[in-house]
Amino acid sequence: MAYPLEVDYAYDRVPADLFGRPAAHGLERWAPLLPPLAAPGLGEGNTPLVQLADGVHVKDESRNPTWSHKDRLNRVAVSAAKASGARGVVVASSGNHGAAAAAYAARAGLPCAVFASPDAPPAVASFVRAYGAAVLTVPRESVPALARRVIEEFGYHPVSSFTETAHTGHPFGPEGYKTVAYEIFLDLGEVPEAVYVPTGYGELLFGVWKGFHELTLLGLADRTPRLYACEPAAGGPLATALRTGRPATRVPVGPTEAYGISCAVGGYRGVVAVRESGGAALTVTDEQMAAARAELVGQGMWVELSSAAGLAGLRAHRDASGRPGEASGPVVCVATSSGFKDSATGTRSYPPMAADWDTVAAALRDLPG
Amino acid sequence: MAYPLEVDYAYDRVPADLFGRPAAHGLERWAPLLPPLAAPGLGEGNTPLVQLADGVHVKDESRNPTWSHKDRLNRVAVSAAKASGARGVVVASSGNHGAAAAAYAARAGLPCAVFASPDAPPAVASFVRAYGAAVLTVPRESVPALARRVIEEFGYHPVSSFTETAHTGHPFGPEGYKTVAYEIFLDLGEVPEAVYVPTGYGELLFGVWKGFHELTLLGLADRTPRLYACEPAAGGPLATALRTGRPATRVPVGPTEAYGISCAVGGYRGVVAVRESGGAALTVTDEQMAAARAELVGQGMWVELSSAAGLAGLRAHRDASGRPGEASGPVVCVATSSGFKDSATGTRSYPPMAADWDTVAAALRDLPG
Repeated sequence: MAYPLEVDYAYDRVPADLFGRPAAHGLERWAPLLPPLAAPGLGEGNTPLVQLADGVHVKDESRNPTWSHKDRLNRVAVSAAKASGARGVVVASSGNHGAAAAAYAARAGLPCAVFASPDAPPAVASFVRAYGAAVLTVPRESVPALARRVIEEFGYHPVSSFTETAHTGHPFGPEGYKTVAYEIFLDLGEVPEAVYVPTGYGELLFGVWKGFHELTLLGLADRTPRLYACEPAAGGPLATALRTGRPATRVPVGPTEAYGISCAVGGYRGVVAVRESGGAALTVTDEQMAAARAELVGQGMWVELSSAAGLAGLRAHRDASGRPGEASGPVVCVATSSGFKDSATGTRSYPPMAADWDTVAAALRDLPG
Repeated sequence: MAYPLEVDYAYDRVPADLFGRPAAHGLERWAPLLPPLAAPGLGEGNTPLVQLADGVHVKDESRNPTWSHKDRLNRVAVSAAKASGARGVVVASSGNHGAAAAAYAARAGLPCAVFASPDAPPAVASFVRAYGAAVLTVPRESVPALARRVIEEFGYHPVSSFTETAHTGHPFGPEGYKTVAYEIFLDLGEVPEAVYVPTGYGELLFGVWKGFHELTLLGLADRTPRLYACEPAAGGPLATALRTGRPATRVPVGPTEAYGISCAVGGYRGVVAVRESGGAALTVTDEQMAAARAELVGQGMWVELSSAAGLAGLRAHRDASGRPGEASGPVVCVATSSGFKDSATGTRSYPPMAADWDTVAAALRDLPG
């Protein structure tokens, strides 16, 4: 069993007015609570909360520099690469993480190697490639050994997890993610009742928990919100770990379109976040995620399917008695990324239609509302 | 000749401390200087300035709810639809404008009709369609007559310009865009020396000018920056209007990949912005835009080709003597939208490669840096 490395701080040396300062773009805003930001930023973070009709808040992480939450992780992880004198950055990802790593590496003047699946969505392939990274489309089982040689022989810094028995991740990853919690606290002016988080390896989940936990260490809050992990029902290593009392598990993964959070292996961080916060691990089907995505897009937010897992988890949530989860305070669902990253994006164009009024009028009569 | 409608305010009734308040998401932040915001928002605006190595600031408008500047326009234009009791929203656009209109219409509970070209980029087609709008792919020449019937017979509110002799646009459009100027002023703490703006119909250009002009009316600034319009060299109706002393012109348009700002017809607003600010109309070739896009992506910002016109204009700028434009204060280039909107996005995937070290090492040796 592999446990992740944890970053600790001298909390008594954090400036007392840190949370009294206005919100601003860039993780610099939170520098006293972060590892050294040796790599330049792109104004990441400071994403808005958008409210749904029933008052639920959506933390719109598609408003980051590469349009996902992964920018927060990569600002600090690429800073580690820069600070340690690495000659490049290596990552295994067919989605947001690879693109964010490529962008921050480019900004820091470091080359980037992205191990990606050849069946990555076409729009995502354009995306990762745009930043000038080398896209290495080798079979998944070959990645760990090849990545190790990239690290050893080329001197590249890994910003993905290459441990086998459990996901450990980059130690600085949750440090970037915890700023999500700081921002929610600043925006709401209070600790929410619950946060629902799309969950793959559980790093974002843990980061959000850690951020709120730090607020209690700093004396700014007296509790954390309940953290709800929202995994695809096709897998669910965290739900399995919690059910079986283990620090991490490996599970078989069935088919799911939520490729961004489809993971066979979990990690200890997710267990800590759920247990310490009094939350739970929920699993959601593709149908539930699709319904949540439809709800979000009906409110003007086009998210990646994986991103809708948070809202899907909230909508599906039943307590032990089988009743819907009830909250007495604000509830936040994190939406991690934009709809551009989905598999179907860019695969269909719209053929010309007849330029007559009857055709146009018929199309409008089909519209809802 | 058709002139646009202009919105005026009782500037003496604007709260004196409005610009002393912290930045925040949502045009509500600027409500005292905007038309009534009758339609709900998505936390639009409050986008960061990202600095290039030489100190030039890039205003990253891809950080909006639908990842372009058009969200600012559509928040206020859809508000006009809502406030006037319209039964829907109609727009002609094959890109960002259509997607933003569809998102804000969905959020406001209004159906949306988007007249779009059948050859819109595939990723953009996914995008517009995602919000549930009717995508009407009729030939361009049929749009004005059909759109008029949508307005008259269905009671939809137009958020595009349907005037023929010159572009007039929605009167509230520049009201949304002027918040770009407010934010730049707030972020820099001063009026920049110059702002370079990708220019199609010139509405964003005028909005940015108007925002700075209002700062002078409010006594907060003593001048506006020089506004530089950056049009594709394939067309250039504003450059032609300024050269020939006319309020607006129609020009032939050659081939260009910068579809977001490729316009045959200009409007009076652009002329006002350039003349009043002491700026100029620049034209940039596709090659210059591609070079500027490469510069931006090398700094971690993947923008649509049209979006790079601002930086391309700055880099190509020569004064009347043939020398590079020199600035004594901060310079801002507006980048309007993300690279996802480009024609090539999503059209190419990456075939599997051999899983051996020699292949991987060779790919890494090809990387710059």
